[in-house]
Amino acid sequence: MAAELFAKHEGTLRRAIDALDGGSRRSPFPESPRAYEDTAPAAGEERFSAYLGTPFEFAQPSRGYQRTGERSPYGIDLDVVYPLAEPDAMVQAAAAALPEWAHAGVEARVGICLEILDRLGERSFEIAHAVMQTTGQPFLAAFQTGGPHALDRGLEAVAQAYLALSHLPARTRWEAPQGKRETVAVERTWHVRPRGVAVTLGASTFPTWHAMPGLFADLATGNPVIVKPHPGSVLPLAIVVETAREVLAEVGFDPAVVQLAVDTGDEPIAERLLTNPAVAIVDYAGGSRFGRWIEQHVTQARLYTETRGVNAVIVDSVPDLKGTSRSLATLAATYSGQACTSPHVVFVPRDGVDAGEGHATFREVAAAVAAALDGLLADDGRASDILGAIRRAEVLEQVAAAAASGEVLLASRRIANPTFPQATVATPVVVAVDAADRDAYLREVSGPVLFLVATDGTTHSLELASDAARTVGSLAWLVATTDPEVEAAAEQAAVDAGVSVALGLSGGFSANQAAAFGDFHPTGANPAGNASPADPGYVTGRFHLVAVVRPD
Amino acid sequence: MAAELFAKHEGTLRRAIDALDGGSRRSPFPESPRAYEDTAPAAGEERFSAYLGTPFEFAQPSRGYQRTGERSPYGIDLDVVYPLAEPDAMVQAAAAALPEWAHAGVEARVGICLEILDRLGERSFEIAHAVMQTTGQPFLAAFQTGGPHALDRGLEAVAQAYLALSHLPARTRWEAPQGKRETVAVERTWHVRPRGVAVTLGASTFPTWHAMPGLFADLATGNPVIVKPHPGSVLPLAIVVETAREVLAEVGFDPAVVQLAVDTGDEPIAERLLTNPAVAIVDYAGGSRFGRWIEQHVTQARLYTETRGVNAVIVDSVPDLKGTSRSLATLAATYSGQACTSPHVVFVPRDGVDAGEGHATFREVAAAVAAALDGLLADDGRASDILGAIRRAEVLEQVAAAAASGEVLLASRRIANPTFPQATVATPVVVAVDAADRDAYLREVSGPVLFLVATDGTTHSLELASDAARTVGSLAWLVATTDPEVEAAAEQAAVDAGVSVALGLSGGFSANQAAAFGDFHPTGANPAGNASPADPGYVTGRFHLVAVVRPD
Repeated sequence: MAAELFAKHEGTLRRAIDALDGGSRRSPFPESPRAYEDTAPAAGEERFSAYLGTPFEFAQPSRGYQRTGERSPYGIDLDVVYPLAEPDAMVQAAAAALPEWAHAGVEARVGICLEILDRLGERSFEIAHAVMQTTGQPFLAAFQTGGPHALDRGLEAVAQAYLALSHLPARTRWEAPQGKRETVAVERTWHVRPRGVAVTLGASTFPTWHAMPGLFADLATGNPVIVKPHPGSVLPLAIVVETAREVLAEVGFDPAVVQLAVDTGDEPIAERLLTNPAVAIVDYAGGSRFGRWIEQHVTQARLYTETRGVNAVIVDSVPDLKGTSRSLATLAATYSGQACTSPHVVFVPRDGVDAGEGHATFREVAAAVAAALDGLLADDGRASDILGAIRRAEVLEQVAAAAASGEVLLASRRIANPTFPQATVATPVVVAVDAADRDAYLREVSGPVLFLVATDGTTHSLELASDAARTVGSLAWLVATTDPEVEAAAEQAAVDAGVSVALGLSGGFSANQAAAFGDFHPTGANPAGNASPADPGYVTGRFHLVAVVRPD
Repeated sequence: MAAELFAKHEGTLRRAIDALDGGSRRSPFPESPRAYEDTAPAAGEERFSAYLGTPFEFAQPSRGYQRTGERSPYGIDLDVVYPLAEPDAMVQAAAAALPEWAHAGVEARVGICLEILDRLGERSFEIAHAVMQTTGQPFLAAFQTGGPHALDRGLEAVAQAYLALSHLPARTRWEAPQGKRETVAVERTWHVRPRGVAVTLGASTFPTWHAMPGLFADLATGNPVIVKPHPGSVLPLAIVVETAREVLAEVGFDPAVVQLAVDTGDEPIAERLLTNPAVAIVDYAGGSRFGRWIEQHVTQARLYTETRGVNAVIVDSVPDLKGTSRSLATLAATYSGQACTSPHVVFVPRDGVDAGEGHATFREVAAAVAAALDGLLADDGRASDILGAIRRAEVLEQVAAAAASGEVLLASRRIANPTFPQATVATPVVVAVDAADRDAYLREVSGPVLFLVATDGTTHSLELASDAARTVGSLAWLVATTDPEVEAAAEQAAVDAGVSVALGLSGGFSANQAAAFGDFHPTGANPAGNASPADPGYVTGRFHLVAVVRPD
């Protein structure tokens, strides 16, 4: 039956492999809500509403059902209860499910993974509401990043795993000298041995987007997975795990191949779960403090991490200051700067920059960015659609701390969301600081904060950005220049610092999101982590090869 | 010029890639000394002799020339002096050489690597003498493992690196939605960013065989390498590094891309070298004590290790007790059990085993193994050709300790080597112990020691072997059984324990050496290490990918 699933989805797999090889990308998961059936949006919203106030049931080891601290940044009542995890019992159940899953073979596992992704594709509206209401993302962003983009990333991981495993010659034969005796023919077979029980930790901002690649890379390479959502954003991953277990059970596998380990903010289980000696792989995306804890304490497992860092913008020269400022303002405002690639630090020469026909001083650049933010966010309804909602109170504390650390060029202001009056919505604060004041801007920020840092010039800006990448970590740079030599220098600096970079901000280009099959995320070459599904090491570290040789 | 080298060796590369994919293996490095030109053996010996008593010169940062403690287990005077390393200056020189090497591109680097391998292939006799006289290996083994087999492993690593890097699409193009604005076409390029300065630590037993894969995987992926030989076996790696630097200089690269870091036993530099923050990759093969030290202290680098462990033989049933015993005796005696895959622990049911027509008791199995060793090693000349020489005094201490820990069934005896009267040659001691006496046999041994362990039966034997793999680590198992069900159980136990296994010892099959393109070494799934060039992770962890996106 799993073989039928492989056959059913083989076309999708082949197209994904072609995209990995540089071919065109034709995602099976449309990113426009309008591409779905007319009834899909309402049906998805209805399914989402049906979760509210009810228990989300899983037949797993549990200490009973309880609320987790999940609350909507938009202020609606969620009130979903989940079974609280029993970490040790879940690890045992996963370990018990491993042998059968390992022996199923890559095609069976890939077929099942693709069926799970396919069914999740039909639940994208329901997932979008769950992501929106637990993370504060605006609806369209929640739909795209939580649904189709997340599924694309899962598909990419499955394709990478299939490539890595199917590339191995299953059986080889060669002649082995036996000292003075007759040479014998030797047959060798490779066994793919999964590393063991995997844990995927969910993020509070993009729960499905961050969890999908690790989850599916683990599954495709034979490792059972325990998904531990952030207690503030359980529902999206509960939907994912429910779907996975449904498919596993239908095809006759132990549903314990995928489990949901729910905890609460008051009684966290992550440390106990991760240090269980049977846990062999950990995927984590989130703050760097817990990321460092994992790196120091979870020494028995292979780690794939993505932590926040300092995402730098280097402004060197622009043909059209207004246009560049608009692009930058849009990036900074989107989801209130709470995304992992949101820019927070903009390096601008203190003597100003070439700007089209003339020259713009540092003050003029700052004023243009502030004006662009003001213009973009003037209307409360439109501003709410861009900003989403503030996740939690600590985010506002970061805004206040940023404002206190330099000269406020544009204050953060509260906005009323017309649909969700209880949502906390805040515009970005823009703060000018000097490059010498490192402590002010070299900090991990996840919220509506934009530092404009006055530097000695673009060479200095690149040095500062490189230094931030090496010490704090960075996921992405954006570069605005009209000078090909500066562009080349910026590209080389990014490579040396191990940070992916988008050039072209001077022309208004502002791609800073990670697209599947063209990933734009942690490279492994700086402290912001190594969890890039585009890196071949992303899947190869999840299994071992054991050789069996015999005379043939 | 590097491009010409790629063209020159492209056929070799393509054949190696074909072998990786399961095709036939046609090594460019013949393993029979007779396959070389008639003058090659004498010329190689002459070149080796010319090193003795002279300085081996390198234009590198150095604290002056000195002896390292290198001495021949065969008792000849070596008296070669080398430039003592300046670790920090060498790391700086390597780091300075990195950018140009990284930017050279994969084809240039692969061409240079293949040229180095090609020239080393012409130095195999000279390398064989250097390996023999610094490690105590018998000549034929030193030739095969030190020359052609080592070069095959280097070639395998180059092919793996080429596959991994050339698989990446250099440039892709896709459409990126820009919110409400017009969709833009995005071009993405990948930059391969080497991890940084690499260190390859040489082993005292198989210096070239262990060093080649890491050295060439590092070079092909763009990382400069500092080769730090074991102070007791410098000469073989000095020849390798000299050849590499010669090719690099000819093609116009900084020879600091490959450096030789020589130290002495009295003033070791490994700890200082490895903890230099710029060191990003470490390859190590050797004892597990220093292996654990590296794992605990060298946290800034990616580690590829191979440490000794307990290599188990599981005897279940044999059609011909004499034949199996002969194979086992040959394996145990080869190079006096000083190889990393030498078997040291033989699990035999205390109630005996089925043996062809009848039944053999534990005592009878033990007697057959002892008799096979006696027969194999009866003639001093032949015995010397099999046993080689004892590397150093500590090995004899291990023999004495083993003899004291159980019932000696066959004592170790000294043998006079007819060619090298000062060589220390000793036959294996065979010691019977009970399975319950774990401390007696669960130890890291590198010398002529064979424990016969009495177990409750084959299921128990497999449990004990699995437990040893999980706790101490294992590189290879050998299984002797005539029962297909036992064979299947042993195969599964090996996969679960993460140990590569050779089946067929009951028929006399005894392949336990790692052949390139069919590797049979640490899988990464037990404490004996992860340094298997056959694992795709062996090369993918040596570089990062940095994405650069721009509007197209």
